Amino acid sequence: MMTLYGYWRSSASYRVRIALALKGVEVEHRYVNLRTGEQGAGDNVARNAQGYVPTLELEDGTQLTQSLAIMDYLDATYRNPALMPREPILRSKILAASMTIAADIHPIQNLSVLKYLRAEFGVKDEGVTTWVQHWITKGFKALEATAQQYDTLFLMTDDPGFFECCLIPQVYNARRFGVDMDNFPKLSAIDAACLAMPTFQIAAPDNQGDAM
Amino acid sequence: MMTLYGYWRSSASYRVRIALALKGVEVEHRYVNLRTGEQGAGDNVARNAQGYVPTLELEDGTQLTQSLAIMDYLDATYRNPALMPREPILRSKILAASMTIAADIHPIQNLSVLKYLRAEFGVKDEGVTTWVQHWITKGFKALEATAQQYDTLFLMTDDPGFFECCLIPQVYNARRFGVDMDNFPKLSAIDAACLAMPTFQIAAPDNQGDAM
Repeated sequence: MMTLYGYWRSSASYRVRIALALKGVEVEHRYVNLRTGEQGAGDNVARNAQGYVPTLELEDGTQLTQSLAIMDYLDATYRNPALMPREPILRSKILAASMTIAADIHPIQNLSVLKYLRAEFGVKDEGVTTWVQHWITKGFKALEATAQQYDTLFLMTDDPGFFECCLIPQVYNARRFGVDMDNFPKLSAIDAACLAMPTFQIAAPDNQGDAM
Repeated sequence: MMTLYGYWRSSASYRVRIALALKGVEVEHRYVNLRTGEQGAGDNVARNAQGYVPTLELEDGTQLTQSLAIMDYLDATYRNPALMPREPILRSKILAASMTIAADIHPIQNLSVLKYLRAEFGVKDEGVTTWVQHWITKGFKALEATAQQYDTLFLMTDDPGFFECCLIPQVYNARRFGVDMDNFPKLSAIDAACLAMPTFQIAAPDNQGDAM
């Protein structure tokens, strides 16, 4: 059985948990406590050179990092249901929307960035919250405009896949930081449709063994 | 002929230019001046909802955004030479290294983020430079550790591909911001091998029509 090293509230871990649940693949879960700094400890850095989570360890010991790269691996090795369509244009558009979250929203509000803002620039709680809200709102506005162009139940498809693995954890973060999701009706509808599904519920932060 | 909307010093545009050059695909270049704010103008936002560059416009008018998603499209439609191997584990590892740059380094030192630091937190030039150096150094340390595990000429292969499209623009940025590349000997060797190739030279910022 594969092992997933993750953390309940880590957005990137949450993405991989959703992908695994959609594929119906069971893994052993091990926890890396981001609040106590376990991500920077030697054993985590040995498996994840960036000192981040998640890491997926395959049965032969191979260790895969970076949530989207792990999802790409899972989609190549467990084909059904596919997370990504094969048609190159649709695939590119879904990947672009996923990258809007995975590159242009999430890393800028990542724990290590917020720590830097506090420690080096003396930014207080209110400033940190405004910063997080700014980047989520900026990215979600673009995604909402894109989503409005499609009549599909999910972003560009009638089943959840690669993009929804990215969106739902980001909406979870948005709510934590007080972003008003009413401004994003199509994204909210996709979120609601996903949260109603058992696969997404299994993967939810509050249902993890290390949830506090 | 396809049209690439980009900017000479945009890291993400540079990635796509390298990918096109490696594939031997010619495009028409149009320029979006990031210094004068053209990225936020209506015509750019109409083609790129995030108000970023690059955008690749196909012959039928389809507009693709996000550099890695554009590279994915190019790799699916112009197979030779392949930017990505088909073997799922190697592919995942190359994608993970690419995401280290495209998600965890570049967006945090993107122009819009630096503008926010200056405008909202009053960060001065020195603080901005230290911030940029910090995130590049953090990411490059992890990538150097990964690269050291392989005897290949490039990251994990004997030809440049997806990862090198991401690395070379990031090294260009690293030098601009005074990061000491001597700390990253394997990354520097990959960079030197790439910069010696005509395909990478064609794509270089200084060789673009809008270079200043």
